[in-house]
Amino acid sequence: MSKNYLFELAKRRKSIRKFSPNPIDLEDVLEALEVACRAPSGANQQPWRFLIITEQAIKNRLRKACEIGEREFYEKINGDFKKWLTAKGLSWEKPFIEEAPILVIVFMDVKSQYARESVWASIGFFLLALEEQGLNTVPYTPSNTSYPLKEVGAPKGFQLEAIFPIGLSAEEKPREPRTRLEEVAYLNIWGKSV
Amino acid sequence: MSKNYLFELAKRRKSIRKFSPNPIDLEDVLEALEVACRAPSGANQQPWRFLIITEQAIKNRLRKACEIGEREFYEKINGDFKKWLTAKGLSWEKPFIEEAPILVIVFMDVKSQYARESVWASIGFFLLALEEQGLNTVPYTPSNTSYPLKEVGAPKGFQLEAIFPIGLSAEEKPREPRTRLEEVAYLNIWGKSV
Repeated sequence: MSKNYLFELAKRRKSIRKFSPNPIDLEDVLEALEVACRAPSGANQQPWRFLIITEQAIKNRLRKACEIGEREFYEKINGDFKKWLTAKGLSWEKPFIEEAPILVIVFMDVKSQYARESVWASIGFFLLALEEQGLNTVPYTPSNTSYPLKEVGAPKGFQLEAIFPIGLSAEEKPREPRTRLEEVAYLNIWGKSV
Repeated sequence: MSKNYLFELAKRRKSIRKFSPNPIDLEDVLEALEVACRAPSGANQQPWRFLIITEQAIKNRLRKACEIGEREFYEKINGDFKKWLTAKGLSWEKPFIEEAPILVIVFMDVKSQYARESVWASIGFFLLALEEQGLNTVPYTPSNTSYPLKEVGAPKGFQLEAIFPIGLSAEEKPREPRTRLEEVAYLNIWGKSV
């Protein structure tokens, strides 16, 4: 096995927000979740829960719920961040929540140690594993999670961390550029290039 | 390429705290960082910085600094968590900070959007990539980051998120068990097994 398979996967991956209506195989999503749930976690408490949504009616309700928070958010923002969002074609509308064949909603057990850190390390595993399965997604973090949270019946103590619309891409878009490693990795002294 | 290479990597990986004194190749660590820095991030702000430590004198100082916070922490804890730590053979002593041939300290630019989420997704990428390189590590989150932070000269606005001692394992230990996916992943309704 090559020693840079992951590098190829990571380079190839990009966030996708427009999905083909073609169905995808639930088994492939489960394979990626099998990878995700093997991430390390604080005191091995495995604070992640994954709610897989395949029913269209639930997706429709979730989209509506998320968009309430997005409208509120987009009314408040301004400056460089608003410009960046507009340039990317982003708005309060989140059609991908309805259009993706499968959603995975990731929750965090808030009482666990290093809960957020652990859940997002697991999300890192999940993103690479979806790419390996040939599936596209975007980590969507609702601006106000309380609205979608009401729709899903999660017990108290679980926070909604992100929604992953999963499917096959229906958009052509460039990959987001990355800062070269030399500029974000230093050797022994902060700022000293490797 | 097989569709479950990542599953094999994720299953194989375990946290290692005892390292062989054998040197490792800095290039292999850089390869893993090349994977890490391709994680997605909030508004593509790439809020991660990686400080690679190869100098023994710095490792020695970092160990001392981290252990100040660990002593304070271990004096305060009790109950189930203390029992769990003791059963795992964990204490305030962190020899791996001195013993690992290479450390990678991960920082977060606190002013970025979804900074912690992004950094830990990147750490998820990093952990799998280290495993692919045949390197062992443990995500070590100092109980009080202010002590080691003083040693590294990071500018204001950067928080120390974790230290990764990296090397070859010098311990035999079982893998931490994982809850079966059926118990943490639900289909359409919270609690309903896939």
